[in-house]
Amino acid sequence: MILNKVTDGDLGDLNTPEPHGGNIYRLAEELNISYSEVLDFSASTNPLGVSKSVMVAIKDCMMTLNNYPDPDATQLRHEIARRLNIDSESILCGNGSTELIYLVVRALKPERLFVPVPAYSEYERAAKSLQAINKDPLDLTYFFLWDNDGFRLDADKFIKSMSGGDNSATYRSALTTSADMVFICNPNNPTGRLISKDDMIKIADAAKRLKCYLVVDEAFMDFTPSASIVKEVEGNPYLIVLRSLTKFYALSGLRIGYGVIPMAIMDMLKQHKEPWTVSTLAQEAGITALNDMVYGSETFKVLAAEKKTMEDGLKLLDIVYFPSDVNFYLLKMPNAKQVVASLRRKGILVRDCSNFMGLDDTYIRVAVKSNRENMRLLKELARL
Amino acid sequence: MILNKVTDGDLGDLNTPEPHGGNIYRLAEELNISYSEVLDFSASTNPLGVSKSVMVAIKDCMMTLNNYPDPDATQLRHEIARRLNIDSESILCGNGSTELIYLVVRALKPERLFVPVPAYSEYERAAKSLQAINKDPLDLTYFFLWDNDGFRLDADKFIKSMSGGDNSATYRSALTTSADMVFICNPNNPTGRLISKDDMIKIADAAKRLKCYLVVDEAFMDFTPSASIVKEVEGNPYLIVLRSLTKFYALSGLRIGYGVIPMAIMDMLKQHKEPWTVSTLAQEAGITALNDMVYGSETFKVLAAEKKTMEDGLKLLDIVYFPSDVNFYLLKMPNAKQVVASLRRKGILVRDCSNFMGLDDTYIRVAVKSNRENMRLLKELARL
Repeated sequence: MILNKVTDGDLGDLNTPEPHGGNIYRLAEELNISYSEVLDFSASTNPLGVSKSVMVAIKDCMMTLNNYPDPDATQLRHEIARRLNIDSESILCGNGSTELIYLVVRALKPERLFVPVPAYSEYERAAKSLQAINKDPLDLTYFFLWDNDGFRLDADKFIKSMSGGDNSATYRSALTTSADMVFICNPNNPTGRLISKDDMIKIADAAKRLKCYLVVDEAFMDFTPSASIVKEVEGNPYLIVLRSLTKFYALSGLRIGYGVIPMAIMDMLKQHKEPWTVSTLAQEAGITALNDMVYGSETFKVLAAEKKTMEDGLKLLDIVYFPSDVNFYLLKMPNAKQVVASLRRKGILVRDCSNFMGLDDTYIRVAVKSNRENMRLLKELARL
Repeated sequence: MILNKVTDGDLGDLNTPEPHGGNIYRLAEELNISYSEVLDFSASTNPLGVSKSVMVAIKDCMMTLNNYPDPDATQLRHEIARRLNIDSESILCGNGSTELIYLVVRALKPERLFVPVPAYSEYERAAKSLQAINKDPLDLTYFFLWDNDGFRLDADKFIKSMSGGDNSATYRSALTTSADMVFICNPNNPTGRLISKDDMIKIADAAKRLKCYLVVDEAFMDFTPSASIVKEVEGNPYLIVLRSLTKFYALSGLRIGYGVIPMAIMDMLKQHKEPWTVSTLAQEAGITALNDMVYGSETFKVLAAEKKTMEDGLKLLDIVYFPSDVNFYLLKMPNAKQVVASLRRKGILVRDCSNFMGLDDTYIRVAVKSNRENMRLLKELARL
């Protein structure tokens, strides 16, 4: 575990050249090709692509775009509530779940943030952005997940650490008092590893006891929905669950996410929220996607088959990968940097993971795509 | 002028029931009708509605929504730059110009904010949101524009006041030192009044001298484009100009705005910016709209005719209105509240202006819409 004192104005590394996957536009420009020709394994969205029903919904409502979006996203919230069997008043929609990460940090102003890593980098960036505004000291402490343990999160150890209580010789916590905010990405991006529902509930209970906000980023949870702890929010005023519609429903370009928020802090969050961040098309697409049951079941069928293709292929090529509960794999290759560069020259984008805290330049993340595309990737990897 | 000490955590009034126009959804629910049946004069967007070319563009790119949007909005920035004849590197795109209002306030952290009122309420809300995060004192000072002066802004008086220098008996400035940030909405929402380009340049020069950031919100400037001071940004490190594509191009539901930003502060703003806030469809729609010259010229033709209809009708009905340089009118009616309520019952939404600082419950803002719609409004007003 590392204590990272965020110093005032320390925003220097926020602007790195390629902070996320999915920038097909830059590669297209580099290679002087159309962005539709880029084979993008760096963004992990549903291989089925945008559903036909969503496209019809967009077409049907585009002539109403002269109207402002519903600022409360009422209908979308009702649809989500119905699906999850929760109260629609506990739902807050956002411009992707990323908007809500920033909102939660700004509204709740953590002073001791605790994050298991590797994880999605926007938690840290949101904290640094807060620190640049707010003069209060912000301690950002990492809980490292380890490669040789398959990036498994040990719930008991984690709870001890977030409590500031684990000062054993082998594992010294940098937290002297307990954290006041924890971000956990589950299933975890970029490792693909799921923390079990029981373990997550254990951690949520501990957070409640410690009066520490636990923000669970379930952006990829639709791929393994039974493990969600979204229904625990009602009984836990310190639990916030963020969800995304951009991964499972392949709507990254449209931006739709939501948070399930304890009633006690809902007003505070709304007071900080910028108006109209979820466009009318995003709201309509979300409503339609949630009702497209055929798309959902087709997704699980295709993914099961294609994950088998990927795993078989990777085994055949003797490439180390980590078991995944979602639609992407973390690979370990000694020559990862070189592989990324070679694929790039061929118009294939994979996620170079060297800028994930807790990983180094021997990791790559690849999405599971269509059979044709997966085979193409495997063939190119075989050649390298 | 009023000094408004924003006290810590003073966010109580941010969540008023109807803070903006355009909430057709709430009225539709109230009346149990479809929102498409609401006649909305409360949001001031182009009466032509969404252009056909934009709808084609949306249809053509909706199947690519599985990809993330270009985080840099490169092509849209180039298109804007070409149109305005400025450097594309000085442009930052946002989820409507409203995102950029919050971004500018968060990144530049004003301590003495100066705003002529009445004006768009989000400047104040952004300041209050900053204050709730940041413990620094934030003085928000209003410069009142007066009804009996047609809400004209006197540039010389304004400059004196923003400098903290006008302590004459009749007009005592609450600023003892100069402001460090000024928001001016030009043309002004909700008055419809334009400050001349010469006066704006005078104010911008003064801001530069005072090292005070001048944020000019030109959200409605496309309706009177020659008065824009967007080309002054290059030579003035304290001038920020915000523009919107949602009003002139009737794309409120899709959210597209941009800022023209001095190079000296561009990196700082980018460090605070949340990623992917401008969706792929918003980027494509923006590119297409900017190139639709027929839509632009048709707009000016229709607006000229319909503004005449509106003005003639209002004169006939003896309703006081203020001359407007844009696509909406501010009306003064002693029984405004009653008028708003009566129209509401008929499914007609106008903007109750009683929550604009500097106005009271005798003002209504109405957009200019199609001839049929304008005539309907005038007839209903005649009946009341």
